[in-house]
Amino acid sequence: MIDLRRARPEDLLTAARSGDRAALARLLSLVERGGEPARAVGRVSHPFGGGAHTVGLTGSPGAGKSTLTGALLGEVRTSGIEVAVLAIDPSSPFTGGAILGDRVRMSDHTLDRGVFIRSMATRGHLGGLSLATPAAVRVLDAVGFPWVFVETVGVGQVEVEVAGAADTTVVVVNPGWGDSVQANKAGLMEIADLFVINKADRPGVNDTRRDLEQMLELSEGSEEYRRRAGRGDWRPPILATVGATGEGVPELWEAIGAHRHHLETAGDLGRRRAQRRDEELRRIVVESLLERAERAWSSAGTADLLAAIEARTIDPYTAADRLLEQLD
Amino acid sequence: MIDLRRARPEDLLTAARSGDRAALARLLSLVERGGEPARAVGRVSHPFGGGAHTVGLTGSPGAGKSTLTGALLGEVRTSGIEVAVLAIDPSSPFTGGAILGDRVRMSDHTLDRGVFIRSMATRGHLGGLSLATPAAVRVLDAVGFPWVFVETVGVGQVEVEVAGAADTTVVVVNPGWGDSVQANKAGLMEIADLFVINKADRPGVNDTRRDLEQMLELSEGSEEYRRRAGRGDWRPPILATVGATGEGVPELWEAIGAHRHHLETAGDLGRRRAQRRDEELRRIVVESLLERAERAWSSAGTADLLAAIEARTIDPYTAADRLLEQLD
Repeated sequence: MIDLRRARPEDLLTAARSGDRAALARLLSLVERGGEPARAVGRVSHPFGGGAHTVGLTGSPGAGKSTLTGALLGEVRTSGIEVAVLAIDPSSPFTGGAILGDRVRMSDHTLDRGVFIRSMATRGHLGGLSLATPAAVRVLDAVGFPWVFVETVGVGQVEVEVAGAADTTVVVVNPGWGDSVQANKAGLMEIADLFVINKADRPGVNDTRRDLEQMLELSEGSEEYRRRAGRGDWRPPILATVGATGEGVPELWEAIGAHRHHLETAGDLGRRRAQRRDEELRRIVVESLLERAERAWSSAGTADLLAAIEARTIDPYTAADRLLEQLD
Repeated sequence: MIDLRRARPEDLLTAARSGDRAALARLLSLVERGGEPARAVGRVSHPFGGGAHTVGLTGSPGAGKSTLTGALLGEVRTSGIEVAVLAIDPSSPFTGGAILGDRVRMSDHTLDRGVFIRSMATRGHLGGLSLATPAAVRVLDAVGFPWVFVETVGVGQVEVEVAGAADTTVVVVNPGWGDSVQANKAGLMEIADLFVINKADRPGVNDTRRDLEQMLELSEGSEEYRRRAGRGDWRPPILATVGATGEGVPELWEAIGAHRHHLETAGDLGRRRAQRRDEELRRIVVESLLERAERAWSSAGTADLLAAIEARTIDPYTAADRLLEQLD
């Protein structure tokens, strides 16, 4: 057994690839930390990846994503397929309880060696989620999971972006979804490869289906919808499930498989992944530049510049130019 | 009258400062556009600012923020005070209707020369909101509005950050707020200087008040809560309003005044604004670096690097280092 705290990323990866779950957890903790430790893990993981199909599951809080993911895991495991679940939490002392509750709903699977479940919290730095999520998926991919599920809350600009960065994105809504997701309906419509009306034992399923169909027609006219690479002639199907009882879950798993098949045969998978590679490389470049900015920031002149901005003898744009001149 | 399309930012500002509302609208459009036009507006506006007190109003979609803001405007205008409202929309073809609807609720004030209302949409680029909002506030400040209200939807990481970047931040909730804001309760708790339970004619006001009080006690232990500069010994009061009838709105306006007085007398206003100057300067530095990254991106080597990442002969972190070497 290796010493988790002292082991190099390459040794942790070797251990994780031969089934050491503690080593895998340690790798993901390094990814979560960001910065150079995360990059070191990424460098060693990248060569081993490419085999995993990623499925994003997203929707508003309370849509029953965790319960549905738990039911989906049950379905997947009946065929013996191994799967990793990455649950992205908006880190918060207050949602802590709720999230633990959610994870408990998945706990049927915690003793199953073919399932790996990990919650990930990245609080604070802007763009943290957008960098940490693909980096964590890269590790799970390198370890050999053929399927990686990424569960995220579909609120906010960054969160919806992260949810859309999957091979197959499932948007979970409820009967009568309305005001609660108003602000990001458009974003969710654009990223959905499949819609699931969960809690379909409640009234309003048909109205919701009609609502979704109408919005789909609208969004087909939007630039972002068309821009999203690799959609080809796929039109997002609308499924109905009851996560708590498992109703409709076999059909959901089948639809995910059909979408994967579509992506692979139409050549859309390659296009979609090319777009993600492009976006991730940009983000890594930006992160490195941010680290430089931090160094410029620690320089002697910053306090004087801030004082001059306060005194209105310099504007913040000119001040930024001065700081960057020092950097060069 | 000046030619809005051709006028230089300094001439637009001079016109806007003497009451030309079309010139003001044009300046805000330039800010919305981002990049060099926005920076040019910022450079000329900065020297004239410093007089405005900014009030952020935020909460989940459907909390009735616009109606409440409209009622608050009515209250403010009874004392003849001039006020500008900046409504930050998550830009979306689907919420378009709802937002228009919201603006109509504020339309009692559209013929009032002492009120300026502007919706601002910044879609697409990450951090767009975080840069454009203070830049727009800077213009309204420079034009001489003593009060600037900024209304935002309190969902998502970026959005909550923007909402918190005010002198006084009002968090609007409803009786029985629960699952719908679960994901960002913590973020909202940390930025609130005042809580408003709006739609207080519905049942559950006392439960919500108790809920908020408990969460306040919890959040007083959090690092972010303490970090937020200038809170001093202020404890966020919890008010109850009915935006549609105006009930409780005079008390809200009074509480905003009390918070301003607290900030000014305790010296907390200076500390809070110093923190915002610091954050804004960092963001401007980052934006400039991003523009450099875009230039590196357009270089010849990028396509080859992306192909090598796909072939897994290079990892994205090493590829990013190569791109940045070209930049230097």
